[in-house]
Amino acid sequence: MLMSLGDYIDVVGAEEISKIYKKANKLYTKHIANVNATFLGGGVAEILGRMVPLMNDAGLDAEWRTIHGSPGFFDITKSFHNGLQGGDIELSDMTKSVYMNINQEYANFSHLNIYDSIIVHDPQPLPLIKFYRKQQPWIWRCHIDITDPNPELWNFLKKFMIRYDVIVVSSEKYKKDDLPVPQKVIPPAIDPLALKNKELSEEAIINYIKSVNIPTDKPIMAQVSRMDPWKDPEGVLEVFRKVKEKVDCRLLYCYNLATDDPEGMKIYKKVYEKVEKDVKNGDVLFVVGNNDLLVNAVQRFADVIVQKSTREGFALTVTEALWKGKPVVASNIGGIPSQITDGKNGFLVDPQDHKTCADRIIKILKDPKLAKKLGTNAKESVRKNFLTTRLVSDYLDLLTEVLA
Amino acid sequence: MLMSLGDYIDVVGAEEISKIYKKANKLYTKHIANVNATFLGGGVAEILGRMVPLMNDAGLDAEWRTIHGSPGFFDITKSFHNGLQGGDIELSDMTKSVYMNINQEYANFSHLNIYDSIIVHDPQPLPLIKFYRKQQPWIWRCHIDITDPNPELWNFLKKFMIRYDVIVVSSEKYKKDDLPVPQKVIPPAIDPLALKNKELSEEAIINYIKSVNIPTDKPIMAQVSRMDPWKDPEGVLEVFRKVKEKVDCRLLYCYNLATDDPEGMKIYKKVYEKVEKDVKNGDVLFVVGNNDLLVNAVQRFADVIVQKSTREGFALTVTEALWKGKPVVASNIGGIPSQITDGKNGFLVDPQDHKTCADRIIKILKDPKLAKKLGTNAKESVRKNFLTTRLVSDYLDLLTEVLA
Repeated sequence: MLMSLGDYIDVVGAEEISKIYKKANKLYTKHIANVNATFLGGGVAEILGRMVPLMNDAGLDAEWRTIHGSPGFFDITKSFHNGLQGGDIELSDMTKSVYMNINQEYANFSHLNIYDSIIVHDPQPLPLIKFYRKQQPWIWRCHIDITDPNPELWNFLKKFMIRYDVIVVSSEKYKKDDLPVPQKVIPPAIDPLALKNKELSEEAIINYIKSVNIPTDKPIMAQVSRMDPWKDPEGVLEVFRKVKEKVDCRLLYCYNLATDDPEGMKIYKKVYEKVEKDVKNGDVLFVVGNNDLLVNAVQRFADVIVQKSTREGFALTVTEALWKGKPVVASNIGGIPSQITDGKNGFLVDPQDHKTCADRIIKILKDPKLAKKLGTNAKESVRKNFLTTRLVSDYLDLLTEVLA
Repeated sequence: MLMSLGDYIDVVGAEEISKIYKKANKLYTKHIANVNATFLGGGVAEILGRMVPLMNDAGLDAEWRTIHGSPGFFDITKSFHNGLQGGDIELSDMTKSVYMNINQEYANFSHLNIYDSIIVHDPQPLPLIKFYRKQQPWIWRCHIDITDPNPELWNFLKKFMIRYDVIVVSSEKYKKDDLPVPQKVIPPAIDPLALKNKELSEEAIINYIKSVNIPTDKPIMAQVSRMDPWKDPEGVLEVFRKVKEKVDCRLLYCYNLATDDPEGMKIYKKVYEKVEKDVKNGDVLFVVGNNDLLVNAVQRFADVIVQKSTREGFALTVTEALWKGKPVVASNIGGIPSQITDGKNGFLVDPQDHKTCADRIIKILKDPKLAKKLGTNAKESVRKNFLTTRLVSDYLDLLTEVLA
């Protein structure tokens, strides 16, 4: 069954949906291409898989196309992804040549000039624009944290970026002074109807929780995140020890570990050794969140959710937790302060200040009224700002502007 | 570097290439979509990866698009592939529903009505046509052996086939009486510039042969094929024993074994046990052909090539061997008799008749003049009938016809 904007009425209200349909009037039958790197796996594929059908539902002729890369090409663009986030990268002539050739070949058998506008997502298909006699607005949509990109890579890719009419980034902080191209901000969003976010009955939640042997007798503080140093799993343990002195509760660490992630495995072992005793007596619980419905249930079952990261992009896991009406205590970094107003819909803490972090959690666990107030505000703030429907609406505004 | 028809002048001559360019005149800027299931791996991706760029080189606006499936969808269409070749299949409502939903979703965000004609390859995107208000010729190109399809599956898929304007199959034998749709035959082809087929220097051939420890002191009879019962590896051994009585030579079995192919592993073990002694004394050699250049070198180095299959589709490995100017002794089944005229450009033998097979091989090994004559004719027959350029030419004829 194809998704429709109407399916979101129960989530954001009929008025909001009606506004989006009206906004699309001027864009009826406009033929828009979205080009990205993959249709399976990854956040961008998730977003496009939902957004493009909704654009069609609104009356546009929106397309989703994926570049035909080779395994070598995808290795290279993965290194570009890391390089744009500041990682080291070896930018050899060979690397550039594979990158350019795949784009040229794809352009050769993809006649994109038929479209009224073309939205290119992320660096993989970025140079496509070079291979057309451009005759419509091209938009580059960058989903990556580009606060501090590798300079050599940035200068190489900038050559293609400046051909675009508009560049869209996820946060004000990612705007670049050295890019003489109009830059817009469209924050990311979560899909309230996806398995990871949809409403679950109390019964379903309890069933999922029991299926992974989580005891339901004491309050639970949870962190949902990868095993990666920037998520500070050891900091989470320290905070938990401080909390535990005041409130009898359990820590649930829901992590996702790829089989090809030896780094994550190492961190997991290190963390595990530190709390082996607590794991054995049930105070600390590790759960592998390899199933969207299970993660959903964990977030809904927890009494307080912590995000103790020392580095974050937008932090969509925080968005997901807020959407579930949970009180969240999170580090004041990356995209988190754009989501949480301290004391209103959650608490912001300095990532180094474990004591304050523990104090906020204790406060929440001891004060159900406060927990409820924060949670209610949390959910409303996401409803207003960070759902798929707002994302569709932003893209319609952008397209109306470039096609005016 | 983009491929051009001009690159094939050295292979098929300037006149042939010039004819193809002229043929394209009437199709200039015609916008043609090819839709298939994958851009990485498999014969169809190989064909389209070469053919579509050459169509663009000729002046058409040809596109190559791939359906966005889920892993479950591709499992289902793999079972359809087997079912069309006569295998058992469970065609549940759930199966049909996943198959149809993916096609509907892909159609929703792929506005194919902009094209002048649409060529759909194989069963994965077959039902796409159902989701458009059709307004141009649609062609279904079936690359599969459909001599004896599973009847239930055939009846299910026929509902979509009859919506097409033309169905293209690989052999006269695959035409179906119960399909009230014009059916054309376009035989497959090999690419003479691909790594598997391109010219190799004597030095390069010897280097590859030595790299896998093949002794170069005695004549070699070779079979290149998967370890699968229909390739009759045990029959090949029997034939070799008979040949060996008359001519001192070695057998080289070049096979490809996927890591997830326990069936193939079992057959390999069974075959290996039968010839363990011969392997140890070097009379029988097994080589894993996991590299296109190595397979190319093996085919070019062998003195005679055998294809003792009991069941074949078109048998492109025979085409590849013939193209390398080799004398080939092959079973008179599947697409093989459409490639070999007995005694002229190779020998055809009854797959059960090991004695005649051995006699032909002995004849070739004892008579270098005959070997040379067969090989020369073999190469010319492929040049004329089974190269990529002929494939492009056939598609141009077909498009000219449907767009007339």
